[in-house]
Amino acid sequence: MSESILHEPLAPFAMRLGERMRSRGLRLATAESCTGGWIAKVVTDISGSSAWFERGFVTYSNAAKQEMLGVRAATLNAYGAVSEPVAREMVAGALAHSQAQVALAVTGIAGPGGGSPEKPVGTVWFAWGQPDRGVVARCHCFVGDREAVRHQAVRIALEGLLEHLQAHV
Amino acid sequence: MSESILHEPLAPFAMRLGERMRSRGLRLATAESCTGGWIAKVVTDISGSSAWFERGFVTYSNAAKQEMLGVRAATLNAYGAVSEPVAREMVAGALAHSQAQVALAVTGIAGPGGGSPEKPVGTVWFAWGQPDRGVVARCHCFVGDREAVRHQAVRIALEGLLEHLQAHV
Repeated sequence: MSESILHEPLAPFAMRLGERMRSRGLRLATAESCTGGWIAKVVTDISGSSAWFERGFVTYSNAAKQEMLGVRAATLNAYGAVSEPVAREMVAGALAHSQAQVALAVTGIAGPGGGSPEKPVGTVWFAWGQPDRGVVARCHCFVGDREAVRHQAVRIALEGLLEHLQAHV
Repeated sequence: MSESILHEPLAPFAMRLGERMRSRGLRLATAESCTGGWIAKVVTDISGSSAWFERGFVTYSNAAKQEMLGVRAATLNAYGAVSEPVAREMVAGALAHSQAQVALAVTGIAGPGGGSPEKPVGTVWFAWGQPDRGVVARCHCFVGDREAVRHQAVRIALEGLLEHLQAHV
C-alpha cells in the first residue's frame, strides 16, 4: 500500500464535484458496493451537500443490488457482481429509484478475500450516468490492501464523474 | 471541536459489533441521514463484513426517507426529519426493506446550518431495532463542528447497537 495514495485527500474531488453539480442544479445518487458508503461519506463531509446529494444506496449484498437498484439476477449470475453489466445496471437503477439527475456506481473486490485469476483483488468497475445521456463504464485494477483499493475507488468514482460532467454538462 | 474526539478510532466499535453479529448469525442494515454513509463505511472497512452487513440506506433527502424507508410524510411534517418518530420509522423501514435482522438509524443536524432554538446544531436522534424486540431510541446533543458531530454520531450509533445486542441477544 502506498502511503502517498492514502494521504491524498478526497475532499477536493468532492468539493469540485459539488461546485459543478450546484452550478448546474443537478443532484447525485450513489450506488456503492465495495466502497461501502465511503463515497457518500466524503460527499456529505461537505456542508451544504444536501443541495446536490440526494441519496445513496449501499448495496453490499447481491439481494440489495437486486431489491434496491433492480439489478437482474440473470446479470449477476452471468457476469458476477463485479462486472461492467452490473455496474451499468446499478447506475441505471440509482437513476430510476431516486430523484437524482446524475448517478455513479462502484462494484469491486476490495480484498483481502474474493479475488480470482480473472478478477483479482483490486478489480473495480465504475459507471457514471445521466438519464438522457447514457452510461459510461470503466474498469480499474488497483494495487494495495483493502484500505488502498477502497480509497482509490472513491477517488476514481468522484474524479470520473467530474470528467463526465465536464464533457457532457 | 475536541482533538481527542476526532482521534478516537471508530474501527474498534465496528469490530466488536461485527464479532457479536457474526457469532449470532445476524446481519445489519443502516439508515443514515446526517452521518451520510459514514457508519456503513466504518463497518465495511472491516474485511469479512459482508458476512454481517447487508445493506445501507443513505437517506439524505426527505424524499429518500419516504421512498427508501417508508417514513410517512405526516411524520416528517409533524415532527421534522430530526425527531424520535422519524428515527423510529427509519429503523422500522430499514428492517422492512432489507434482509437484515438488526437495524440502526441516525438523523441529526450536523451543521453548520440547519439549527434552531429547539433543535440546535449537534442534535442527533438514534434508533436501534430488531423485528421481534421493538425499537429503542435516544437523543444526543453533541458539541463541535460538522466533523465532530458526525464522528460522535457514528460512535454512538455503533456503541448503542452493541449495548442493545448485549442486552437483548
